[in-house]
Amino acid sequence: MLAFVARNGALAATTKPIPRLRPGWALVRVRLAGICNTDLEILRGYHDFHGTLGHEFVGEVVRVAEVVGATKRSPRDRRWLGRRVVGEINIGCAALGRKPLCAFCRRGIVSHCARRRVLGIIGHDGAFAEYLTLPLANLHAVPANVSDEQAVFAEPLAAACEILEQVRVADHREAAVLGDGKLAQLIARVLRIAGVRVTMFGRHASKLALAQLAGIGSVRFRDDKLPARFRQRYSLLVEATGSPSGFSLALEMTAPRGTVVLKSTFHGAAEIETWPIVVNELTLIGSRCGPFPRALALLRGGAGRSMDLRPLISRVFPLREAPAAMRFAVRRGVMKVLLKA
Amino acid sequence: MLAFVARNGALAATTKPIPRLRPGWALVRVRLAGICNTDLEILRGYHDFHGTLGHEFVGEVVRVAEVVGATKRSPRDRRWLGRRVVGEINIGCAALGRKPLCAFCRRGIVSHCARRRVLGIIGHDGAFAEYLTLPLANLHAVPANVSDEQAVFAEPLAAACEILEQVRVADHREAAVLGDGKLAQLIARVLRIAGVRVTMFGRHASKLALAQLAGIGSVRFRDDKLPARFRQRYSLLVEATGSPSGFSLALEMTAPRGTVVLKSTFHGAAEIETWPIVVNELTLIGSRCGPFPRALALLRGGAGRSMDLRPLISRVFPLREAPAAMRFAVRRGVMKVLLKA
Repeated sequence: MLAFVARNGALAATTKPIPRLRPGWALVRVRLAGICNTDLEILRGYHDFHGTLGHEFVGEVVRVAEVVGATKRSPRDRRWLGRRVVGEINIGCAALGRKPLCAFCRRGIVSHCARRRVLGIIGHDGAFAEYLTLPLANLHAVPANVSDEQAVFAEPLAAACEILEQVRVADHREAAVLGDGKLAQLIARVLRIAGVRVTMFGRHASKLALAQLAGIGSVRFRDDKLPARFRQRYSLLVEATGSPSGFSLALEMTAPRGTVVLKSTFHGAAEIETWPIVVNELTLIGSRCGPFPRALALLRGGAGRSMDLRPLISRVFPLREAPAAMRFAVRRGVMKVLLKA
Repeated sequence: MLAFVARNGALAATTKPIPRLRPGWALVRVRLAGICNTDLEILRGYHDFHGTLGHEFVGEVVRVAEVVGATKRSPRDRRWLGRRVVGEINIGCAALGRKPLCAFCRRGIVSHCARRRVLGIIGHDGAFAEYLTLPLANLHAVPANVSDEQAVFAEPLAAACEILEQVRVADHREAAVLGDGKLAQLIARVLRIAGVRVTMFGRHASKLALAQLAGIGSVRFRDDKLPARFRQRYSLLVEATGSPSGFSLALEMTAPRGTVVLKSTFHGAAEIETWPIVVNELTLIGSRCGPFPRALALLRGGAGRSMDLRPLISRVFPLREAPAAMRFAVRRGVMKVLLKA
């Protein structure tokens, strides 16, 4: 099958055999995959990963390897066949057949399993290919009324929803989102639907305009100087700039006793003054992967909570043009780029 | 009266008039004052403060200015006369006669009043003098069984107790305290008395020995290399090194989903990689001033919660020798230095 791996800082086409399945795993034919900033970081050497890239996808289950002797206990494994699915990307002890389970897997927090593999990021081939494999436990069926173009956002949207698991957003009248990129856009929408008045701070007029269409306030930054009216203004702020300067700006804009959610995973050190965290008794919360059911519920819509993410799609490339798609994705002003298998 | 102010990076003796009182304030004769690392920072230019230094004290109320026309409402103001007291250091809108109150003062969180003055730190003369003034609302009577040498620790001990207000320490089986200095010692004792197994990480054998006497485990660091067994080990970690390197070390030692309490207020930027906060979904909590009643309850003891802090006192100087005391306080291995008026 066709697959794309990181090689010398770019995506390179390769041919791999269709992967074999461990018991309890599924073979998924990829229908649509999304390019994420993490993919760009991996091309720059992050995680030293040389497998198939890609961790955002919607696909179709084409084969299931039942757990040996488990037909009585889990007779529904075969029901996944033919299903349209999205998938959680962290693969923990149980799915890897490692016993005893680690402390996190025992608590059901597979995303922090110390031995985890991560689809398209750590030790497991990803979605920029014709097929991928995942444990059945990682899969979520896509509701019929959710298109592939919406479903492909499930993984980053779940990451945005993680904030709702970590912070009582109802305690906050308004929130700021730093950054106007793909993840920042999803975060702002999730917070707005949760009932918070959201202002997005970014550098790109076209991206801020997308937020405005979704009912999100916006402030364009033209330089690094923060207008005085935003100093210590927000009791809740999400840092999603993906850049080192975002951290200090976040501390500056957050009110005493306020909460800063950190979403940027850029590598490399930044020069940071940490005393404002102490003097203003700020709470900083790191936030990574999130709950797929919550994301799928938002995509399914209903109860005034519909979320049309199609305006965030800049372009769809055929899978075979993945290298060109990746080059396009890094261009200024480009939002979500998709690969269609 | 004799008072000591910051001048050219050192303490300088000066003579000031005995301060006049606003209504609702008390004149306190200082009996004993403590030197804090913040005083050293102020000498280096922190807060650009040029008044009388000192914010840790125990004293005696010698004069009270009653609120005009308030004798019916607050007939007990005069009862403060002659009382031995300690005092909260933040002075907010109400005590400064500023109306309307700011949003924090309305919520009773004077420590975050944007207009606050802070005893011996911001805009208000401190405790390295024969007398100081504070609002009656800031004072706490010292129980008869608590000596001056214990009571003078009320302010930093309250700051240590703030952690118990911010974190459910009962959720944690063990905790690490980074740093072996004065505040770190108080924090470790507060956590231990709250039922947590505590390990202190420091560089000074003599300071770690003090912790061991109080039932606290200790690990001596001889270089910056963290032994592998401490990597991501602690679900609760308090950073109280007072140095820029403590922050990164804290991130390295905290388990995924763990909590880091930040207590260091050194100024100056540090080179920090922030991605571990995100990837491990850490919670960082800045922590400053704390509840005096809780600190006084610990000092009063009882119910197996007694806390003998006298071993932390390195030396007591007469107030008139404050400059020499300050020079002594910065010597390696020296813990709390007190000034006796």
